[in-house]
Amino acid sequence: MLTDIEIAQGCQMQTIDQIAQKLGIREEELEPYGRYKAKIPDEVIERFANEPDGKLVLVTAINPTPAGEGKTTTTVGLGQAMEKIGKKAVIALREPSLGPVFGIKGGAAGGGYAQVVPMEDINLHFTGDMHAITAANNLLCAIIDNHMQQGNVLGIDPRRILFKRCMDMNDRALRNCIVGLGGKVNGVPREDHFQITVASEIMAILCLSTDLADLKKRLGNILVAYTYDNQPVYARDLRVAGSMAALLKDALKPNLVQTLENTPALMHGGPFANIAHGCNSIKATKLALKLGDYCITEAGFGSDLGAEKFLDIKCRYGGLTPSCIVIVATMRALKYNAGVPKADTGIPNPEALQKGMVNLEAHVANMKSYGVPVVVAINRFLTDSDEEIAVLSDFCEKNGVEFALSEVFAKGGEGGVALAEKVVAACEKENHFHFLYDTALPVKEKIEKIAKNIYGADGVVYTPQSEKNIKEIEDLGFGNLPICVAKTQYSLSDDPAKLGRPTGFTITVKEARVSAGAGFIVVLTGDIMTMPGLPKAPAACKIDISDDGHISGLF
Amino acid sequence: MLTDIEIAQGCQMQTIDQIAQKLGIREEELEPYGRYKAKIPDEVIERFANEPDGKLVLVTAINPTPAGEGKTTTTVGLGQAMEKIGKKAVIALREPSLGPVFGIKGGAAGGGYAQVVPMEDINLHFTGDMHAITAANNLLCAIIDNHMQQGNVLGIDPRRILFKRCMDMNDRALRNCIVGLGGKVNGVPREDHFQITVASEIMAILCLSTDLADLKKRLGNILVAYTYDNQPVYARDLRVAGSMAALLKDALKPNLVQTLENTPALMHGGPFANIAHGCNSIKATKLALKLGDYCITEAGFGSDLGAEKFLDIKCRYGGLTPSCIVIVATMRALKYNAGVPKADTGIPNPEALQKGMVNLEAHVANMKSYGVPVVVAINRFLTDSDEEIAVLSDFCEKNGVEFALSEVFAKGGEGGVALAEKVVAACEKENHFHFLYDTALPVKEKIEKIAKNIYGADGVVYTPQSEKNIKEIEDLGFGNLPICVAKTQYSLSDDPAKLGRPTGFTITVKEARVSAGAGFIVVLTGDIMTMPGLPKAPAACKIDISDDGHISGLF
Repeated sequence: MLTDIEIAQGCQMQTIDQIAQKLGIREEELEPYGRYKAKIPDEVIERFANEPDGKLVLVTAINPTPAGEGKTTTTVGLGQAMEKIGKKAVIALREPSLGPVFGIKGGAAGGGYAQVVPMEDINLHFTGDMHAITAANNLLCAIIDNHMQQGNVLGIDPRRILFKRCMDMNDRALRNCIVGLGGKVNGVPREDHFQITVASEIMAILCLSTDLADLKKRLGNILVAYTYDNQPVYARDLRVAGSMAALLKDALKPNLVQTLENTPALMHGGPFANIAHGCNSIKATKLALKLGDYCITEAGFGSDLGAEKFLDIKCRYGGLTPSCIVIVATMRALKYNAGVPKADTGIPNPEALQKGMVNLEAHVANMKSYGVPVVVAINRFLTDSDEEIAVLSDFCEKNGVEFALSEVFAKGGEGGVALAEKVVAACEKENHFHFLYDTALPVKEKIEKIAKNIYGADGVVYTPQSEKNIKEIEDLGFGNLPICVAKTQYSLSDDPAKLGRPTGFTITVKEARVSAGAGFIVVLTGDIMTMPGLPKAPAACKIDISDDGHISGLF
Repeated sequence: MLTDIEIAQGCQMQTIDQIAQKLGIREEELEPYGRYKAKIPDEVIERFANEPDGKLVLVTAINPTPAGEGKTTTTVGLGQAMEKIGKKAVIALREPSLGPVFGIKGGAAGGGYAQVVPMEDINLHFTGDMHAITAANNLLCAIIDNHMQQGNVLGIDPRRILFKRCMDMNDRALRNCIVGLGGKVNGVPREDHFQITVASEIMAILCLSTDLADLKKRLGNILVAYTYDNQPVYARDLRVAGSMAALLKDALKPNLVQTLENTPALMHGGPFANIAHGCNSIKATKLALKLGDYCITEAGFGSDLGAEKFLDIKCRYGGLTPSCIVIVATMRALKYNAGVPKADTGIPNPEALQKGMVNLEAHVANMKSYGVPVVVAINRFLTDSDEEIAVLSDFCEKNGVEFALSEVFAKGGEGGVALAEKVVAACEKENHFHFLYDTALPVKEKIEKIAKNIYGADGVVYTPQSEKNIKEIEDLGFGNLPICVAKTQYSLSDDPAKLGRPTGFTITVKEARVSAGAGFIVVLTGDIMTMPGLPKAPAACKIDISDDGHISGLF
């Protein structure tokens, strides 16, 4: 069997201007990055501004399990399948971080015969967006430390600097460090904590900004520190938003690539789905809606995290209305949710499947509660038995939800035709999309709506720390922002061990922070790792490049 | 008067495929990065491999002074002037670092009417080479720390890790830091010292590698640490050279841009000229020689640092022979060398000029000692008087060296025609190019050759530390590498206060290190800053971008 990179390298790519041409973009309008990647400048966005919007299809999933769901693969395959049934689709994806490529997770461009290409470029530097975000993030940090060094007119308290340095690398040694050592000429000693770049607020800002003016305003609004007098210090107070925006001017432009079957794909932005909202950029999604009849996009983790934020944060800021929500699951993952060990999830077991189906049931109910038509996509494995498919079929009928088996990993677009047809039909159904909460509600009421309606919790418990944080946030005037819950992705609850559809639990809010630039309140319900580490045998030690430039070992 | 960025933004650029076409490169061979930048892949280099080489012209300078010399401006202007006199020239420059852009130094793409463009892009992310180097550097660091974390099979001593993290930012707070804090799961606590990316050994390696195989070998050869048993640990021992090379695959390809007058320019690589060799890449220089009749290139700082390393390191590894060396000076800088305060250097003062001329005299003698024809270029200012020009003229006649006045800053290529004609003539003169030393000599003999013959020192003094270092380097088998002296750029001696042409001094070697991957021995004669800081009023606080993407405040 071929590996993902072998399949990707065997693909017959079209040049990027051919892909652009299919969308009505002229060659001279493109900003190519090599022969198979391009950025799309604002002129194109402006030229298409008055075109009607296509249908917005969100692909989400059940809670992730070690057995794997294949959400990105399904998203890419659905895009490919749309073309097979004669629909003009544009895929809008997150772009991958370099860090996981060298760790264990590998690349993030789909899998099997449903991938975006050029796979190596996308997983390495792509068009430099991550690096631009890293640079903008670290410029702000250098300016903060320099401000303290050069007299500290604002009175920044080195113990209360909120904004952290970042690096696009899995590097646990940078999680906790002390910087500014070495005496007076070498800075003010203080504690710092590097994050991986995708966890930077700048990433969230890039993804939520509608244009350069909006970007600059949001960058200026980042709350970076407090003074000794307990006053907030924003990036704008340090007069650095202009430089940061200049660093991000190209990163703000959506990137165009293609799938293995030459379907156009916009890959742009990729924030964390816990401390941030976990979706590709608003700019790319809006552009995909103008360029295609269907924009197929995805959100991070399961629907409790990624989709909820897609709907309540991204759709709100972007003025977007989804036409259909696809929930991806696998038989394996559902059996895992019933307590079947990972190694045994490939063995047919309709009883376990029936039991684990509650997880899917919760996600279906959640997504339906937004008033949007839902389709369940089962990412099919060879081991799935007919009895199991019957269990699924019964479930979907009982829940009044359409479903389709998807074989895009093995068959590409052909394997997604059934799903594509269900999605096209769903997009024509009645749509009563509405947000889960009104942002004008008090912070705690918004959190409770999410916890009860989406997670199925009985209620929310606040630590004294989080009570204090919420009061501070409201006092600063940010109480009316939407909520971004940082929670384990493995459970609907805040306890990763609670699989299935847990009941009789409460959510404990440990801390709250404002991402004033991005425009949301981050509510932490556990320890969220924002700088991954490398495993004992990192992928970095297996990746190689031949003398003629052929990359191997990337997966 | 227009600022550099205003001149650059007013320029009528040709598209990058038009520039490439002038060189015989086909549009489909280019890897464009936007409309005005491109990378040149190996296929092109291979196609031109059998073309005859053009003439290699090195532009160097007297010791830098606060009064400014304009070496890059002269290099760019000379390239523009070559085209004015009907010669096919390709300029080969270093690419700028992002760090200084936000500090005080500003951009590094020439000045006035002798600049390379697109100026903003070149000074911001350009084609991502710096970011790729940063990523490769920091991947190696993450792998080192991860190795210690995951059992430390090699027995790496956390107190003896030589390879440092880097960032392309002026950030003094990162000069000295402690990483790996926070307990067992968060790494092994140790001291680290971030460098600016251009000071990374990876940058030197990229610039000295002739192809991907050579790059990978050199990356593997980096000496990263010692074990508790005092054994060397190389990057290849950590099996990370393949991943690093994969990260650098595009960065290794030369970048094509243009001057304000549409002269082709390859900007590629830019290592420090003290702890590294200070020249653009061998690949770009060799390609420029194939594509043009004249390759105009430059080296960092004055001829004692940049040119010496260009000749003894870069030419040696690249098999290059310079046809002519241009030494750039200004009347102002020569008067400064006579002790005239910076503010008064614009006042005509033939006596001071006569006195300061000794600095130029030393650089001329040094460059002639390599057996290559020399031309002096005076970067002219309006304040230069006729009497001063007469002093210069007498000096050049007495020293048997050609000179020309250059007005490329104010007039572009037209202002460099006289210089271009002298350079063309010099290239036809007899050439007896030879290296200063044989690498087979003992390390100390090589250092003494440089100190005595180039700096004019009476001898070399070694601290006990450096004696120990040199012995270790020879014991490791690296004694036969060329020497890369890290010395103040402001004086021919190792004391920045000694202007003019100091005599009766010795050079003190404080430390020696081997850059085993790059392939040279770094000899430190003083404290060399490898992570700059930001000034009280950083340029970052003046740079801005308008809502329609127009950048201002970059200089």
